[in-house]
Amino acid sequence: MRDVAIVAASMTPFGELWSLSLRDLFVEAASATLQAAKVDRVDSILVGNMSAGQFVNQEHLGPLFADQLGMAGVPCTRVESACASGGAALRQAYLEVGSGLSDLVLAAGVEKMNDGADVTAVLATAADQETEVYHGVTFPGLYAMIARAHMEKYGTTAEDLAAVAVKNHRHGAMNPRAQFRRQVTEEQVMTSTMVADPLRLLHCSPVSDGAAALLLCPLDQAKKYTDRPIKILGSGMATASMALADREDMAWLDAVQTSAERAYGAAGVGPGDVDVVEVHDCFAIAEICCIEALGLVDRGKGGEAARSGLTALGGRIPVNTSGGLKSKGHPVGATGIAQAIEIFEQLRGECGDRQVVNAQIGMTQNMGGSGASSVVHLFGRV
Amino acid sequence: MRDVAIVAASMTPFGELWSLSLRDLFVEAASATLQAAKVDRVDSILVGNMSAGQFVNQEHLGPLFADQLGMAGVPCTRVESACASGGAALRQAYLEVGSGLSDLVLAAGVEKMNDGADVTAVLATAADQETEVYHGVTFPGLYAMIARAHMEKYGTTAEDLAAVAVKNHRHGAMNPRAQFRRQVTEEQVMTSTMVADPLRLLHCSPVSDGAAALLLCPLDQAKKYTDRPIKILGSGMATASMALADREDMAWLDAVQTSAERAYGAAGVGPGDVDVVEVHDCFAIAEICCIEALGLVDRGKGGEAARSGLTALGGRIPVNTSGGLKSKGHPVGATGIAQAIEIFEQLRGECGDRQVVNAQIGMTQNMGGSGASSVVHLFGRV
Repeated sequence: MRDVAIVAASMTPFGELWSLSLRDLFVEAASATLQAAKVDRVDSILVGNMSAGQFVNQEHLGPLFADQLGMAGVPCTRVESACASGGAALRQAYLEVGSGLSDLVLAAGVEKMNDGADVTAVLATAADQETEVYHGVTFPGLYAMIARAHMEKYGTTAEDLAAVAVKNHRHGAMNPRAQFRRQVTEEQVMTSTMVADPLRLLHCSPVSDGAAALLLCPLDQAKKYTDRPIKILGSGMATASMALADREDMAWLDAVQTSAERAYGAAGVGPGDVDVVEVHDCFAIAEICCIEALGLVDRGKGGEAARSGLTALGGRIPVNTSGGLKSKGHPVGATGIAQAIEIFEQLRGECGDRQVVNAQIGMTQNMGGSGASSVVHLFGRV
Repeated sequence: MRDVAIVAASMTPFGELWSLSLRDLFVEAASATLQAAKVDRVDSILVGNMSAGQFVNQEHLGPLFADQLGMAGVPCTRVESACASGGAALRQAYLEVGSGLSDLVLAAGVEKMNDGADVTAVLATAADQETEVYHGVTFPGLYAMIARAHMEKYGTTAEDLAAVAVKNHRHGAMNPRAQFRRQVTEEQVMTSTMVADPLRLLHCSPVSDGAAALLLCPLDQAKKYTDRPIKILGSGMATASMALADREDMAWLDAVQTSAERAYGAAGVGPGDVDVVEVHDCFAIAEICCIEALGLVDRGKGGEAARSGLTALGGRIPVNTSGGLKSKGHPVGATGIAQAIEIFEQLRGECGDRQVVNAQIGMTQNMGGSGASSVVHLFGRV
């Protein structure tokens, strides 16, 4: 495979964007990305989207989006892996450039969640319909069970969970594109509404609209488009048992571990080499489980990591400097691309107050369902 | 890119399969394909599916299907381009093997349409929600407008449309996996219920359940799995204006032409080299427009082609020997893969009564919406 670089990136702010439709969101992020690279044509487009069919009655996003972008004719395909749809789209775009078939490929993600649909019910279609959803469980409940298992096994506390939210809001307060650009205190988290015991409202990522896009090309052509390309060092994807009940250990995310091992192997680096990471904190417990499965901290030590400052800006391994899904927002199909944008900008030194000093290698981890799919990418300065 | 071969294929019968769920269908087709190649593990799975979220409340098919197949861990991603989802999944699988990232990749397609959903409404989400569906149009209406435009411009008749249905039912009567394994007469077509003038019931493909799967590997490894591998000669994909009203010529399918030109270019062959073709006859008029856009007949001569026997078994260029979507059935996400299975079997000489004598090169053309996306693949004997 050819080496592949990211040469431009852009995203909409995330939030309740009532004045922007699904197509508006895509076009805003995609056209800003093309403009940044000064191109008006690409060879192919991959779009991550979980469920526009259910959210806004629109499938077949490929031709709609190519058309709306003024590029009718260009191949444009939707990729879906629930909340990991963005990461999966990035992976397919990476493969398409790597294969040699296409030179200039746009990898985008979009979700329009605020448009009247029953969001919790739509999101639940990412769980096992027959063995989980039919019986009434939704994602807050599934992640609450993961949290309970982690607390039982490792002594993780509600305060550990709160520390993740406090940290990510502190980071997100410095991100102009974040949905919640404000800090929260441990007390606010611990007294917020209980959603699914032990998860309270401020342990949960919000319902968001938004889009994000990246432009990929062969590394040896990257300097045509930017003087600071970022190389994709490796891509790893994995699945795990769909239903929580089928897993040997509910407190461990197999797909995250496997996808990370594959990405580390492809990149030839290890967790100790990584300077900045975006992980999939759809719920606070998810960040805790993910940093363990990524090998950034020891098994069972994920809760401690947020509380001790290890994963905060200035700590040993800053996690979710963008604010994470918790504070930046979580338009599910866009999230995986937005994570890569944060790393792209960190490695280019463009993150202002939330910049990680001299970040050389970054990582994203994007997850679907209760961890049944996971996509990990590693990125490096050129 | 590496050369890529198909080494095994299998599909469920298509039909109203009330006793089989979405996951059952996938597992049946996928496991039979693996068994045919005597493998119990693949590197990756791509699944084409249009709308399981709307049809049966299940998104996130990737991990669900990998898990159900006994392969939790293996990357498995859903690809969607409405009724071209199967073709798009095949294309992504082809790229993944071609890139060198994976050796053994399963390309599958599945749709469970008969399960209580309002099928016409779900399918309509493949059209432009804002400029078409909102105003009440559904696919029979859109294709009826294409038919009217073709009749007006070229003098195509209702009898030409009927000839497509009669031909495809004659072919499908010889296909044990076809949903409607029986012939129909021109009179039966012309007196069947009017659906959207000029399209009658027997001009329309049915609502179907089904799944299909192909196993891909590098050509130079193919002999490990079969003594008769089929090479993928080229892949082309294109989009066009999503809404019919935005097209300069409603009787011409731009995306089909462009995707075909790309596939011909990649394969280094032309329409005159092709011995057998499966095209996307979701409605009879679609076959007429597609064979024109593929360059198999002159512009405006698509109607005549079916009536004259040119596209029948024994004719110059047999089209839809499987029975096509019309007679074989059209579980939308599975269709693109099932088309490739027919060509795979034709090129291997396995089609019994409907075998095209000495077929060397075959082609599939799979389409989304009213032709807004199209995927063309060319295949050849090794």
